Amino acid sequence: MGGDFGPHCIVPACLECLSEMPSLHLVLVGQVSVLKPLLEPAKQKVDFARISVIEASEAIRMDERPTQALRGKPRSSMHIALEMVRAGQAQACVSAGNTGALMAVARHVLKTVPGIDRPAIAASIPTEQGFCLLLDLGANVDCSAEHLYQFALMGSVAAQVSGIANPRVALLNVGTETIKGSQQVKRAAQLLSQGQRLNYQGFIEGDGLFRGEADVVVCDGFAGNVVLKSSEGLAQMISHKVEHLFKRSLWSRFVGLLSLPLLIELKAELMPSRYNGASFLGLQGVVVKSHGSAGPEGIKAAIRQAVRDVQQDVPGQLRMRLEPLLSQSAF
Amino acid sequence: MGGDFGPHCIVPACLECLSEMPSLHLVLVGQVSVLKPLLEPAKQKVDFARISVIEASEAIRMDERPTQALRGKPRSSMHIALEMVRAGQAQACVSAGNTGALMAVARHVLKTVPGIDRPAIAASIPTEQGFCLLLDLGANVDCSAEHLYQFALMGSVAAQVSGIANPRVALLNVGTETIKGSQQVKRAAQLLSQGQRLNYQGFIEGDGLFRGEADVVVCDGFAGNVVLKSSEGLAQMISHKVEHLFKRSLWSRFVGLLSLPLLIELKAELMPSRYNGASFLGLQGVVVKSHGSAGPEGIKAAIRQAVRDVQQDVPGQLRMRLEPLLSQSAF
Repeated sequence: MGGDFGPHCIVPACLECLSEMPSLHLVLVGQVSVLKPLLEPAKQKVDFARISVIEASEAIRMDERPTQALRGKPRSSMHIALEMVRAGQAQACVSAGNTGALMAVARHVLKTVPGIDRPAIAASIPTEQGFCLLLDLGANVDCSAEHLYQFALMGSVAAQVSGIANPRVALLNVGTETIKGSQQVKRAAQLLSQGQRLNYQGFIEGDGLFRGEADVVVCDGFAGNVVLKSSEGLAQMISHKVEHLFKRSLWSRFVGLLSLPLLIELKAELMPSRYNGASFLGLQGVVVKSHGSAGPEGIKAAIRQAVRDVQQDVPGQLRMRLEPLLSQSAF
Repeated sequence: MGGDFGPHCIVPACLECLSEMPSLHLVLVGQVSVLKPLLEPAKQKVDFARISVIEASEAIRMDERPTQALRGKPRSSMHIALEMVRAGQAQACVSAGNTGALMAVARHVLKTVPGIDRPAIAASIPTEQGFCLLLDLGANVDCSAEHLYQFALMGSVAAQVSGIANPRVALLNVGTETIKGSQQVKRAAQLLSQGQRLNYQGFIEGDGLFRGEADVVVCDGFAGNVVLKSSEGLAQMISHKVEHLFKRSLWSRFVGLLSLPLLIELKAELMPSRYNGASFLGLQGVVVKSHGSAGPEGIKAAIRQAVRDVQQDVPGQLRMRLEPLLSQSAF
């Protein structure tokens, strides 16, 4: 029921994902009276044994306070979907709804992995070298050094699970010298240097992140969100400038036409929807958050991310691999 | 003496600025034995009445602590240059050196404008609509709500002085809903809403910033630095991807050749060096900080920024226009 476009965007994306992934089963949780008519047109094309609809009498609004959503709406679509994950009736929950509410309800229903105080939102972002896992993207606006340390541990495990043998972990900061940064960042750096359990690289700045100097970049949710949103905005701006440039004169239109396949390729590579779907790391279950403004392509990317997290058993791997790291904890 | 390339980059940039701006006079403060030989080759081309060299026996290293620089090196090039501004022997100080040290020495020597607790680093960044003044860019890693409020006042005045009649001021946040954000940001929003002295627009996210939804965007130095550096990194990455794309095959090389003038224009428009030169707002004197990694083009942009700040008398205007705003202060 969430996101800027609601079920009218989500349901068609779900149907496309079913065609794309033959082993996928989807449960749509929300207002049946809204969802059923949207499924109707696909009757002939989709095997309805692979998609079911569960009624949720309440939905959490995008502007609702997390605490309000948590206590006031126990029959919301978020609650029911997350309860299904807890009960093993679903392997993952994907939502385009209110991020704060989703995190609050997910923590309440699924609980965190032992040793982790707060889950973090993590997503892969493209760099010059490939990808970088950035966390936290907004779940924790204020973070202590210990939280940042735990994010680093989780990020390293998640990167390992996704196939990077010895992930380079760095802390986002306003400079790379040890004297730079906030108290929390400096203290987190101490914890990470003492720990010696991670391939810790030290501080990284925003430009180093995009140069691909680390596989995992750790920051508080304010900074992470700012990186993510401003990158989206800048990529959008550059894309518009390119379009404008290639439309300016008859000659530039001609050149633009010749360049079109290349420009489309570049745009696809940089489009935020391609990287949509951020994982809530540290929960005892897979939860993926889609951007509220995501269109069908974005929703599909988020569902694919959830499928990957299930296949890699990220929560199980986190629990298993964090235990030895945390038992000899630095604090 | 500062920056990654030191006088070998700065002196040639200075000489070019002298040719470009006939009314400009420059004083180079540093090791005379290093600076003189670099001026030698320009003997025929430049009127040496417009450039002088002042000996400074000490230089502050890039990794030195601000407090150390402030107390331990009273004869540093930074101290001497800023003393010249204080004494009216120079109208502005430009440095590519250690940012923290420059700020500490500048505060000590020049003092802040009455009513301003901490100066902020401000720079214009390109948006879809034109430009946006972003502050703070790293002088104040931890900020109180009152500091953010003062930055908003200063940013608004600076934008007015640069020609924007009624600047739209926004606070950078992780969401636009009033419940979002850190305690400081929420409290700063209250102060700005109560004040009604500014054209305050509410919260803005990183994408809104690049869409040009505000003329002044206010944040703490951590967030601001992260926006600036990650934007530089992303713009660089996209530029490299474009180059790579247009070199992939014989056909794309051909198309690339046709597109070259357009691509060069785009690159020039997005190049960080073009926007180099951040003003220290809130000091009783003009101080402009160049990126440490700036090349000659970047240094020239920083000098031009200092000239603009002098022409617009930013410190005087701040003092004059802040007084009525602060006298009916919200706290």
